[in-house]
Amino acid sequence: MSPHVTDHGAVASATAPPLAMGLVGAGRMGAFHARTLAQRLPGVRLAAVADPAPGAARALADELGCPTALTDIDRLFSDPGIDAVVIATPARTHADLVVAAARAGKAVYCEKPMAVSLADADRAIDAAREAGVQLQVGFNRRYDAGFRAARARIDAGAVGTPQLLRSLTRDPNLADPARIPQWTIFLETLIHDFDTLRFLNPGAEPVEVCAMADALVRPDFRDRGLLDTAVVTIRFDNGALATAEASFQAVYGYDVRGEVFGSGGMLTMGDARRTHLTSYGPDGISADCVTYDQDLFHDAYVAELADFTDSVRSGRATAVTGEDARAALAIALASVHSVTTGGPVRLDALKDA
Amino acid sequence: MSPHVTDHGAVASATAPPLAMGLVGAGRMGAFHARTLAQRLPGVRLAAVADPAPGAARALADELGCPTALTDIDRLFSDPGIDAVVIATPARTHADLVVAAARAGKAVYCEKPMAVSLADADRAIDAAREAGVQLQVGFNRRYDAGFRAARARIDAGAVGTPQLLRSLTRDPNLADPARIPQWTIFLETLIHDFDTLRFLNPGAEPVEVCAMADALVRPDFRDRGLLDTAVVTIRFDNGALATAEASFQAVYGYDVRGEVFGSGGMLTMGDARRTHLTSYGPDGISADCVTYDQDLFHDAYVAELADFTDSVRSGRATAVTGEDARAALAIALASVHSVTTGGPVRLDALKDA
Amino acid sequence: MSPHVTDHGAVASATAPPLAMGLVGAGRMGAFHARTLAQRLPGVRLAAVADPAPGAARALADELGCPTALTDIDRLFSDPGIDAVVIATPARTHADLVVAAARAGKAVYCEKPMAVSLADADRAIDAAREAGVQLQVGFNRRYDAGFRAARARIDAGAVGTPQLLRSLTRDPNLADPARIPQWTIFLETLIHDFDTLRFLNPGAEPVEVCAMADALVRPDFRDRGLLDTAVVTIRFDNGALATAEASFQAVYGYDVRGEVFGSGGMLTMGDARRTHLTSYGPDGISADCVTYDQDLFHDAYVAELADFTDSVRSGRATAVTGEDARAALAIALASVHSVTTGGPVRLDALKDA
Amino acid sequence: MSPHVTDHGAVASATAPPLAMGLVGAGRMGAFHARTLAQRLPGVRLAAVADPAPGAARALADELGCPTALTDIDRLFSDPGIDAVVIATPARTHADLVVAAARAGKAVYCEKPMAVSLADADRAIDAAREAGVQLQVGFNRRYDAGFRAARARIDAGAVGTPQLLRSLTRDPNLADPARIPQWTIFLETLIHDFDTLRFLNPGAEPVEVCAMADALVRPDFRDRGLLDTAVVTIRFDNGALATAEASFQAVYGYDVRGEVFGSGGMLTMGDARRTHLTSYGPDGISADCVTYDQDLFHDAYVAELADFTDSVRSGRATAVTGEDARAALAIALASVHSVTTGGPVRLDALKDA
Repeated sequence: MSPHVTDHGAVASATAPPLAMGLVGAGRMGAFHARTLAQRLPGVRLAAVADPAPGAARALADELGCPTALTDIDRLFSDPGIDAVVIATPARTHADLVVAAARAGKAVYCEKPMAVSLADADRAIDAAREAGVQLQVGFNRRYDAGFRAARARIDAGAVGTPQLLRSLTRDPNLADPARIPQWTIFLETLIHDFDTLRFLNPGAEPVEVCAMADALVRPDFRDRGLLDTAVVTIRFDNGALATAEASFQAVYGYDVRGEVFGSGGMLTMGDARRTHLTSYGPDGISADCVTYDQDLFHDAYVAELADFTDSVRSGRATAVTGEDARAALAIALASVHSVTTGGPVRLDALKDA
Repeated sequence: MSPHVTDHGAVASATAPPLAMGLVGAGRMGAFHARTLAQRLPGVRLAAVADPAPGAARALADELGCPTALTDIDRLFSDPGIDAVVIATPARTHADLVVAAARAGKAVYCEKPMAVSLADADRAIDAAREAGVQLQVGFNRRYDAGFRAARARIDAGAVGTPQLLRSLTRDPNLADPARIPQWTIFLETLIHDFDTLRFLNPGAEPVEVCAMADALVRPDFRDRGLLDTAVVTIRFDNGALATAEASFQAVYGYDVRGEVFGSGGMLTMGDARRTHLTSYGPDGISADCVTYDQDLFHDAYVAELADFTDSVRSGRATAVTGEDARAALAIALASVHSVTTGGPVRLDALKDA
Repeated sequence: MSPHVTDHGAVASATAPPLAMGLVGAGRMGAFHARTLAQRLPGVRLAAVADPAPGAARALADELGCPTALTDIDRLFSDPGIDAVVIATPARTHADLVVAAARAGKAVYCEKPMAVSLADADRAIDAAREAGVQLQVGFNRRYDAGFRAARARIDAGAVGTPQLLRSLTRDPNLADPARIPQWTIFLETLIHDFDTLRFLNPGAEPVEVCAMADALVRPDFRDRGLLDTAVVTIRFDNGALATAEASFQAVYGYDVRGEVFGSGGMLTMGDARRTHLTSYGPDGISADCVTYDQDLFHDAYVAELADFTDSVRSGRATAVTGEDARAALAIALASVHSVTTGGPVRLDALKDA
Repeated sequence: MSPHVTDHGAVASATAPPLAMGLVGAGRMGAFHARTLAQRLPGVRLAAVADPAPGAARALADELGCPTALTDIDRLFSDPGIDAVVIATPARTHADLVVAAARAGKAVYCEKPMAVSLADADRAIDAAREAGVQLQVGFNRRYDAGFRAARARIDAGAVGTPQLLRSLTRDPNLADPARIPQWTIFLETLIHDFDTLRFLNPGAEPVEVCAMADALVRPDFRDRGLLDTAVVTIRFDNGALATAEASFQAVYGYDVRGEVFGSGGMLTMGDARRTHLTSYGPDGISADCVTYDQDLFHDAYVAELADFTDSVRSGRATAVTGEDARAALAIALASVHSVTTGGPVRLDALKDA
């Protein structure tokens, strides 16, 4: 797939009625997805926005010329004119919303994490399966041009059998730490890296996890249980050893990288450079960094919704599934358990958490 | 400006009626612009496509759900429902079409080159001025994120006074040489580089040109006057010495680069890498190249139409003008003259060509 | 220090008698050091080579015009004309040879690892201290220009407090696995990375280690206990979390990299490129890899002996000490223990091993 | 050849008597070469230093333990104990010294430019031929690892037929402009680039030159004829078009790059980075620049003397010849002529200058 997904597949959509999409959650990520649905995808229209916060849905809907703004999410789900929904609410509400949307017969795109317990993940998966609706989860690296090209090369055998992997996420700055739930670094940040490691080690599954974490950005929040820096080592069932690493604050920008080393070679992904401009001056060589996820993953964010809406229209299976979300969540929960117990945790010992 | 121009300015457009755009020329570049007008720009709609080739406008219009397809370009110009036009026909037709569109009261975006003689360039500029319509020319580097960032740094004084500049364009492969007009490498390819050098040396104007060119890709076409490889040296009135370089065939891909060196430092622009993926294998380190202008300049192509349509809506001056097109053309014509005479050519000695 | 250490300090040496050096161990690394002593260091001469293997010392001495070749190492140590020795024998012989050399009054440069048990490390350190001779250990990264520059920037505060570190070593190919002792990946390969992590996190010491390792290059040697792939996570007493990673076989070349991320920024070190040549062809962009440690660390290998011999001449303390060697060894032994027990190991729980 | 030439060929030299070298000119470059001869090359010794400046030869000889220091260069040439000489005096003295040394039967290594007129170049070439001594000229790029690897790939056919070439030299800062002879930028700086372009376009010779130059760094010296910024376009007899570019002052450091583009691909050479360290901070990504030719070309400077002395010992032809020096000089003189006349100059029209 090209990085410019929106350019393709437009032929069919021009004659079919546009897909009517509902957006749930009008926050920062929701607003991006709303703009994508309203403006960037041919054959798709933003039919409704819902957000319980007073005025939030209305403001976004007005901006985008969307006809319907709701504070009651259930009314969006029960609207028969809506074909599919995008859920971009806080993480802990995802699973219930997936279940409700699926039961209402809507195809569901849910931001990561789909759930924060395995029981909830199973409920969401079951609900979609029982309703016969498509379910896709927002693992954006899978739609980034570099990571996608890496996977294509892995599938073509370029690295042989993966032996050592690495994925890292460093956010550019720490928002108000008082508002961040306790295990967020595993459940919401590293969940990307856990999925990336599975994506870059296709067919293999994790068997054991060892995690270390600490409050290094804001040590004053350590006592409240907020961890902002973490390293997780994962052993996969094909022998590969992987490291996932995250920090809530990189002063230089937004840093997402991946690496796969195997019997046949190595692939590296990720580049914090903002543009191809390089400057040379009395202080040396310099370049600007990306500081914003919606810059680094702009095209990936569009591509994942393009792929989801295309799946809905064509009836095919989604490329990122509820099962993928559950598998990444299991690594996150094992990491939490490893931090709590101070030792390695086997994935098969994980109870429903 | 962000590389993702389409994300901005959408607030106003949601309430205003969309800008009705006409596309003239349904070829490769025209089709890209048509998709941009139809799908990528909020507040803009593609109202008509015109192309004299039988079926060409119709196929593109159908693909994009555009209501009107014409083989008669004048009918598009005379349609009172059209606010502005994009001209993407063969180079030698541009000036006449700009004049006709302007006289019909349409704002005009014209692909480069706007004209192939100074007299035609003047006619086009005059027509737009007399009609009071906006005129913008398709110098895409000016909308590329890296080149824009370079200009911003130049304006901020980062390179001091420019002393040495370079701009190059190498196309990935040579189309049918029999169909390429004689001086195309100067008038259609290097025209980009001439504009880029002016863009990177703001306020300065060229005074002297020395060009060398040859038929190295297809020496069998040398006798017919087709030059496929060229180097042009330009002296500017601020003393800066610049080199523009082009080839019709780079086997590795599409290569566009710029460099400004001055009293305060150097900036380099351009990167032929396709993604941030790097591969390491028994044969060393490798990465993929961009091979297609619509990949390398995808965002720039969208950004220039976004900026043009925004200019039309807001009534402000366009950022790239007919005068810019004329100034780049003058360098191209001086280069032709230099090749013909085998010596340097002063810009002020150029007669209307 | 410049990368070209041998250019400096030559003024004094021209008038003083040259430092007489003895080389113990005429293998691959010993031969490199012998050439450095004989040819690359002003004010230094190679006075004797000793190696128990018949003919090995003789061949090397003859090549380099060295007057004395011995199979009896003790005779080299007891030669009063030798000022200092370089020990480049197999790892398990190092500690005893350091002790013997020190007791003979020779300043000692010993290849890593200085010892494979803490008791041996302590014996070596004690022997040097009691004899009042200098002792330096061969951690070459500390003399590589990029790693040195990184440390200088860390000391200048450029990364603030280190929070996340990484060091990796991947050897280009696996020699005869039957000849590799069981824990070599920790004791001889990762020992470099353990030292590097201490070097890049100055003043901090490790408190806890969690290691995972496997036989992925040669799974057929897993039963004999040979581990060829390993990841070690280390918690330091300043909170920093570090990862050390090694493989015995990277098909693309010799790969050594480092990374320090902290409250103030990030530094990355290491580049597998062989030269600054980049090639562009129909298959994309490519460059050659370094495949040989004596290419990648050529200048560092010379610089460490230059610094050692300068220490000996000037009487100052060595820059890399026996205590540094012991500290890195402790991490290696903790890693072995972690692999054996399948859980994290605290450094303070390590008994003399 | 490896970048570390001194590691090779040492076997033979250990038994042969060392080659006795004389160094003429104890300035900055002479001092570097003296250290190479005294300390970096096995089988070579620095037997004498000569410099007419009082005390200069003595200070350098003392530093390096060289037995003989002279102010009379002829006495060095007439010393029968000297096998070969290195000439590192001011450019305008080179040709006469080559002639004198050759007539004295010494093999000669001469810094670039070997001569500043074609007649002088011919005299030097003739003198060496008549004396049957070897003559090598100091074009250091030919011994740089990246440029050498480029040439190897060109010889292997990787770029097909060269079509567009570029070579540039930018010095880090302008020394006292009052002491720089008028045409230095062509005769002493760009002479490197002219040779590099011939090196990268093997077998081809220049046919036509068009030069532009100006005093942009120090416009106050324009009236005295000092040009500090220049661009030269060269047409070769295989059709290739080349650009050579120089500036006397790059505030960011020492910048030397090359590029060859041909029918089969492109090679780029040159990297102003000092080490492989990259820094990331609140101001973006940064790296240090090389600011000193003796850092950038340290290994090349050693390699060229290693190759020369090896040529002398083995009796083989030198790899860089007097004819190479003459050919580069011809381009320089044609450039001077082009600047003077304001037009293109054909090489075959060049009279002895």
